[in-house]
Amino acid sequence: MSVFQAPWYTPAVQRLLDLALEEDAGRGDVTSASVIDEGQEAEADIIARERLVVCGLGIAEAVFTRFDWRTRLRTRVADGDPVTPGTLVATVRGPAQALLAGERVALNFMQHLSGVATLTQTFVAAAEGAKVRVTDTRKTTPGLRALEKYAVRVGGGHNHRADLSSGILIKDNHVALVGSVREAVRRARANATHSLRIEVEVESMSELDEALEAGAEAVLLDNFATRDVGEAVKRVRERAPRTLVEISGGVTLDRMHELAKSGVDIISIGSLTHSARAVDLSMEVRPVVAGRMGAAER
Amino acid sequence: MSVFQAPWYTPAVQRLLDLALEEDAGRGDVTSASVIDEGQEAEADIIARERLVVCGLGIAEAVFTRFDWRTRLRTRVADGDPVTPGTLVATVRGPAQALLAGERVALNFMQHLSGVATLTQTFVAAAEGAKVRVTDTRKTTPGLRALEKYAVRVGGGHNHRADLSSGILIKDNHVALVGSVREAVRRARANATHSLRIEVEVESMSELDEALEAGAEAVLLDNFATRDVGEAVKRVRERAPRTLVEISGGVTLDRMHELAKSGVDIISIGSLTHSARAVDLSMEVRPVVAGRMGAAER
Amino acid sequence: MSVFQAPWYTPAVQRLLDLALEEDAGRGDVTSASVIDEGQEAEADIIARERLVVCGLGIAEAVFTRFDWRTRLRTRVADGDPVTPGTLVATVRGPAQALLAGERVALNFMQHLSGVATLTQTFVAAAEGAKVRVTDTRKTTPGLRALEKYAVRVGGGHNHRADLSSGILIKDNHVALVGSVREAVRRARANATHSLRIEVEVESMSELDEALEAGAEAVLLDNFATRDVGEAVKRVRERAPRTLVEISGGVTLDRMHELAKSGVDIISIGSLTHSARAVDLSMEVRPVVAGRMGAAER
Amino acid sequence: MSVFQAPWYTPAVQRLLDLALEEDAGRGDVTSASVIDEGQEAEADIIARERLVVCGLGIAEAVFTRFDWRTRLRTRVADGDPVTPGTLVATVRGPAQALLAGERVALNFMQHLSGVATLTQTFVAAAEGAKVRVTDTRKTTPGLRALEKYAVRVGGGHNHRADLSSGILIKDNHVALVGSVREAVRRARANATHSLRIEVEVESMSELDEALEAGAEAVLLDNFATRDVGEAVKRVRERAPRTLVEISGGVTLDRMHELAKSGVDIISIGSLTHSARAVDLSMEVRPVVAGRMGAAER
Amino acid sequence: MSVFQAPWYTPAVQRLLDLALEEDAGRGDVTSASVIDEGQEAEADIIARERLVVCGLGIAEAVFTRFDWRTRLRTRVADGDPVTPGTLVATVRGPAQALLAGERVALNFMQHLSGVATLTQTFVAAAEGAKVRVTDTRKTTPGLRALEKYAVRVGGGHNHRADLSSGILIKDNHVALVGSVREAVRRARANATHSLRIEVEVESMSELDEALEAGAEAVLLDNFATRDVGEAVKRVRERAPRTLVEISGGVTLDRMHELAKSGVDIISIGSLTHSARAVDLSMEVRPVVAGRMGAAER
Amino acid sequence: MSVFQAPWYTPAVQRLLDLALEEDAGRGDVTSASVIDEGQEAEADIIARERLVVCGLGIAEAVFTRFDWRTRLRTRVADGDPVTPGTLVATVRGPAQALLAGERVALNFMQHLSGVATLTQTFVAAAEGAKVRVTDTRKTTPGLRALEKYAVRVGGGHNHRADLSSGILIKDNHVALVGSVREAVRRARANATHSLRIEVEVESMSELDEALEAGAEAVLLDNFATRDVGEAVKRVRERAPRTLVEISGGVTLDRMHELAKSGVDIISIGSLTHSARAVDLSMEVRPVVAGRMGAAER
Repeated sequence: MSVFQAPWYTPAVQRLLDLALEEDAGRGDVTSASVIDEGQEAEADIIARERLVVCGLGIAEAVFTRFDWRTRLRTRVADGDPVTPGTLVATVRGPAQALLAGERVALNFMQHLSGVATLTQTFVAAAEGAKVRVTDTRKTTPGLRALEKYAVRVGGGHNHRADLSSGILIKDNHVALVGSVREAVRRARANATHSLRIEVEVESMSELDEALEAGAEAVLLDNFATRDVGEAVKRVRERAPRTLVEISGGVTLDRMHELAKSGVDIISIGSLTHSARAVDLSMEVRPVVAGRMGAAER
Repeated sequence: MSVFQAPWYTPAVQRLLDLALEEDAGRGDVTSASVIDEGQEAEADIIARERLVVCGLGIAEAVFTRFDWRTRLRTRVADGDPVTPGTLVATVRGPAQALLAGERVALNFMQHLSGVATLTQTFVAAAEGAKVRVTDTRKTTPGLRALEKYAVRVGGGHNHRADLSSGILIKDNHVALVGSVREAVRRARANATHSLRIEVEVESMSELDEALEAGAEAVLLDNFATRDVGEAVKRVRERAPRTLVEISGGVTLDRMHELAKSGVDIISIGSLTHSARAVDLSMEVRPVVAGRMGAAER
Repeated sequence: MSVFQAPWYTPAVQRLLDLALEEDAGRGDVTSASVIDEGQEAEADIIARERLVVCGLGIAEAVFTRFDWRTRLRTRVADGDPVTPGTLVATVRGPAQALLAGERVALNFMQHLSGVATLTQTFVAAAEGAKVRVTDTRKTTPGLRALEKYAVRVGGGHNHRADLSSGILIKDNHVALVGSVREAVRRARANATHSLRIEVEVESMSELDEALEAGAEAVLLDNFATRDVGEAVKRVRERAPRTLVEISGGVTLDRMHELAKSGVDIISIGSLTHSARAVDLSMEVRPVVAGRMGAAER
Repeated sequence: MSVFQAPWYTPAVQRLLDLALEEDAGRGDVTSASVIDEGQEAEADIIARERLVVCGLGIAEAVFTRFDWRTRLRTRVADGDPVTPGTLVATVRGPAQALLAGERVALNFMQHLSGVATLTQTFVAAAEGAKVRVTDTRKTTPGLRALEKYAVRVGGGHNHRADLSSGILIKDNHVALVGSVREAVRRARANATHSLRIEVEVESMSELDEALEAGAEAVLLDNFATRDVGEAVKRVRERAPRTLVEISGGVTLDRMHELAKSGVDIISIGSLTHSARAVDLSMEVRPVVAGRMGAAER
Repeated sequence: MSVFQAPWYTPAVQRLLDLALEEDAGRGDVTSASVIDEGQEAEADIIARERLVVCGLGIAEAVFTRFDWRTRLRTRVADGDPVTPGTLVATVRGPAQALLAGERVALNFMQHLSGVATLTQTFVAAAEGAKVRVTDTRKTTPGLRALEKYAVRVGGGHNHRADLSSGILIKDNHVALVGSVREAVRRARANATHSLRIEVEVESMSELDEALEAGAEAVLLDNFATRDVGEAVKRVRERAPRTLVEISGGVTLDRMHELAKSGVDIISIGSLTHSARAVDLSMEVRPVVAGRMGAAER
Repeated sequence: MSVFQAPWYTPAVQRLLDLALEEDAGRGDVTSASVIDEGQEAEADIIARERLVVCGLGIAEAVFTRFDWRTRLRTRVADGDPVTPGTLVATVRGPAQALLAGERVALNFMQHLSGVATLTQTFVAAAEGAKVRVTDTRKTTPGLRALEKYAVRVGGGHNHRADLSSGILIKDNHVALVGSVREAVRRARANATHSLRIEVEVESMSELDEALEAGAEAVLLDNFATRDVGEAVKRVRERAPRTLVEISGGVTLDRMHELAKSGVDIISIGSLTHSARAVDLSMEVRPVVAGRMGAAER
């Protein structure tokens, strides 16, 4: 099964790539243009500088190809591979100016996506042994949703709903406007497309009871204390055995092991995407001695 | 002086906003559409849940207005204001469906940008008393360059060059291809636009000497140990008093105080933009009792 | 509840609107520009020429506003209203050139969307009395998905999944590649986001049995003869009372009454969107006698 | 001569293709991603399920290529070929996930365009033997103008003016604002580019007389009864032998034979584009036994 | 009649405006941001520095509004007005930073478009008294077609065909491929839309004869010597009185008077658009003493 | 060193190319489509018709490739080569319809860019022997900034700052708002990124003194009389030997020799980009006898 299915082909990622190229190199690379011979060919190694899970090789290749269609990126590992410091991740060959102009954009993508994949992998590892899914949320960096959700999959996690159209999640704000969980669920069932399960966010045991009674197909325990989670799971299993139990809010690495053991089906974690730090990757360029290329005409 | 000058007006930010809206709400908000009455008016408070520096009110307003032009965002603080947990940051009023559909996109922007501003402010504070600039780098999240650089200014930092066209920085990769720092500087001086200062990255004292000799107008001490920084600054001041000294690489909060005292002019820090965690902001919606609005026709 | 939630605000619809304006009026309206006085103000009535369900007033308004921001569209009925021949649907006022230039684009949108709404309403009416949903499919006109799905709602129908990311539907082609319905369902359950129900398309009673056994949460009876539908429904109700039954393929108006009575939950009909004929709406322009407007500067 | 000249290359069609891909597969294909092995290669046959004129092979190929550049579409017939039920139209080979993700978008284009071509061919056939052009109008589906006009050519029809800039057509609304046909024609002659013929829409014999007197180079008989058409043609031939006669409005297949014999030069028919039903094409996928492909890096 | 009909509303001009803003101010205005107080309000006069015909006020207003929606442009003259050195053309008021950031883009548009209008007016004046149209060609600056054609109208000229779809012009290259003028005209008549007149470019008297015989509705005398033009016009008038005569190629101001008297219907001039020099307009900014504005939130 | 570094790859140039294709050929080429056989292959020569410096071969190739990916452009000279009338610049081979449809767009780009390169070369030649840079300004044609700046480099000139973010230039309007040159320079130094030199525009000797005193790193002598330039240069060299001297305003070819000898470092000339006339290039098409190509499917 393809857990990965990279989103490089989508118009949205192409547009983000345009933005990224424009904002850094849209008006040229003054340093390289003034310093490097246009005919100079070069080779560059992309190297991991810390322990990390690789993610984003496809978009890095797209970046370099945009600058000059003669560049070639040879991967040495694959997206999803865990690597150690010093590992050669990929080698790019082409006009030196294109390599230098593309370096930062390519690395910015890879460092962020590998950061997400690496953090995800850490949480997944902490849940090892438990039959639980680690998922992302909709708390993603604006414009990078598809890429970050891909990185979560690459890191061994699962995706929560893609957007507001591909999942029903009744939250406190909805209930505040509608009046009750029961009425909200009733309306969702009456109006929403049948392809979607109805999930309800609850903040207490009594809200949990209400949600189960209303027929929720999944419940999201929001910010439950670890000690209450087990009790909640037990209650769901007894009353509505097909209902899924998700927990979210304040999920840290420290709590992961205990939460995973609690029997919940899904642990969703916003920080996977909104607070992953960039991991360290660098690029080293060397001249190809015999390398002299003509100007690219296209 | 406007240190801020928000980039909301630029076509690039408008395009990013399009991407952000599309990826979350481009196919509608199934939950709200099926649960909330279309005529329901509501009010929502955006509230800080931790100590943070606010950033992104303008783009949050743009988000809500895109969903429905009748929404109104009233700011209670301004970009750059430090706030404490519980502070009411802004209130939005409009059709309930628009508020709910826009909530996540608006918060994703604000939590990330406020995160960058807050982290910047922490580094700036750590350098207090020293005559040194804290700046960002080009290590930004792809597509968010202008916004993140704005957030750095909002947090009290300065911007390094905007992109590859607005600054000359000769790095090890350039030197590896050209043969020497001297030759690289010569070429930059001969070919690059005169509007730009020539900065050279150095990794040792001997490279520093070479850069000064070549006439660098700024030097970037890359990954220098704290103890070597003072010596480097002294050498620059003696030999080339108008040359700026920047330090970068491995700059942590722990080292900030000492580095700031070392006499360097600029401390540039990649993590300000590539590794700032999202800060906690939430939105609480309540019905406006008498509020019933007709369908928006545009 | 908002069954409608018009998608005018989405970037995708804005882009389609751009395409529509460009392809008809992107290089100007030679006839009006050469014949009509620029200062002439006018008023135009949009009139139904047959029995139809109105749909698309919001986008018609957007069309005229794009040509000249001084135009004003006053609706006389609302999206979803059934009207008779001769009914005044809306009146537009503004510069005569803008009304004439926008006429065809506005009517092309309204005639198509009202056509979809009208056809949907006919199918919904044919199912009256039965507790069944009439839904669309993904067989929509390329580029018009959101608008056509809106028109289906306006006509009293429901939407099936919005796109390939917001619903799981295992079809014969998937089974052909995976080997069995059982294995396909197993993989979907293991890998796909938990927000989505798992639906399986079946073409015979034995495939239906297999799907139920595998745990399908919904089954799509594909091209079942009317006489077999009742039997299939009965079998599902007995074995898996929570499983939804959908029927699709060759659903004509003639069969609707009988199908609706058969007890299925959902009848999905491709022709609602891919084969609805345009309904007849026309626009009549008259001069506003005292009307003379200056040139619009923006 | 190229009657066809496919518009695939135009930026407008590329943008429509983007919209079509985004709206269906922009956030991935959850079913295929979770069910189908990423390395699985497959082959798919596109098959006609009814008698039809093929149209849209080029854009179908573009669709599959966008999902994965390794797909290959082999055409078995060409645009414009009439085929019978069961005819193999094309075979696509490539990664199974790409074939499944592209299926619906490709078929939606082909079913609509082949529908337009087929309907056009029916009208053209009904006019056989007469020296008359069957043309489309500007009543096209918003955003699909160029494609639908291509389909009309593919079906044996001709195109009327492409848009408001490539033909002058003075209609009742223009006359209502200007005061008389004579004045409208005078202004058009004085102001409009000389590359365009001046055509006038008339609704009665007396308006026809006025148009001829004013020097119309073509007249459009709007909604004329069949019995009046012959008389109108005769009058034009006598008084203005170089003036073209077009008829439009309420042109059904039943009337075509008689109208074609009436001696008019052009019969324009809105329903060719705005009301053609989708024809039936399907796609059948089968695994390529030995087929295992690596992940596409771009 | 509106000879002008400004194209500001078209998506194409909006996209060009985006490009123009991005390329100059997309990454901010470093000088103004660092030097000017954000709250400073200012007023700016746009002043003609030479004799010129004004063109482009609408797009100048759009430029400033994009930077800050609070700017207001008050026109003092209108597009098409001839002005003398020192004339105040418009006054803009708003935040000083927005005025300074928009100055160059607005002036670049106005100086170019006014340059085209002014040059056109000179040619039109040189043809005064003759019943001849001065038109542009398709030799326009890439991306500025609609704007430059508007400027030609503003300068008193007419437009030739808008693009390759809105006029038929058979040139030497077509004839070289088809074999003869006769065959080319025959094909055009058989295949092209009836809305378009058929024009043929000829380079000699014998080609002119052939074109007339083939039934050309307009002939383009390409690079004819002035002395041959009269003879050609005479021949056309005798043999095909309804055929239009256009002359193009090497049309300079010196030749205009004589060419205009020669009796041709149309003189088309590529240099109007491809070689008009920019005219001199400048902008002078002054502070509004009491002016202090808050930060714009959108 | 690459003085050239063509900007073809940038998203902005791709978007301009889209605009250029759409505005001329977006709705097809009616003449070629109706006259030329779709299977006809052809070859076309692009020929210089006057003495000029070639510029734009890369974008011409991109134009033809967009119409049909089977076209091949073979360059006979390179960007930057000076050629004489009659020189064969490039040969294009491909489907005749694609060559004819692309001809005008390709030539419009090349004639304009070669015009800029040629004019630049003339100014550079006039400065021969002097150690001075001839540069462009920001007075470029909207949307063509990157291309025109490339053409200036191709013609032997240098670029001034790329945009408002890549250079600091304090002008009279800034000083009018801030109060003094001294204060403006102080603010720029305090707030702007350190990568940029601070340049000040001066209009008199006293302003020059003030600028030097304030620490300007470059001064722009605006509209100085030729006789005053030498005096100004002398004063700068004495007081601030590292400060660059630029002259701008009213720089004509007549004055170039004298200005170049005056010792200034930079002469910037707006007319290079805003007023270069198009140079004469033409395209001649001939059939390839055996050439018959099938329809392109993509």
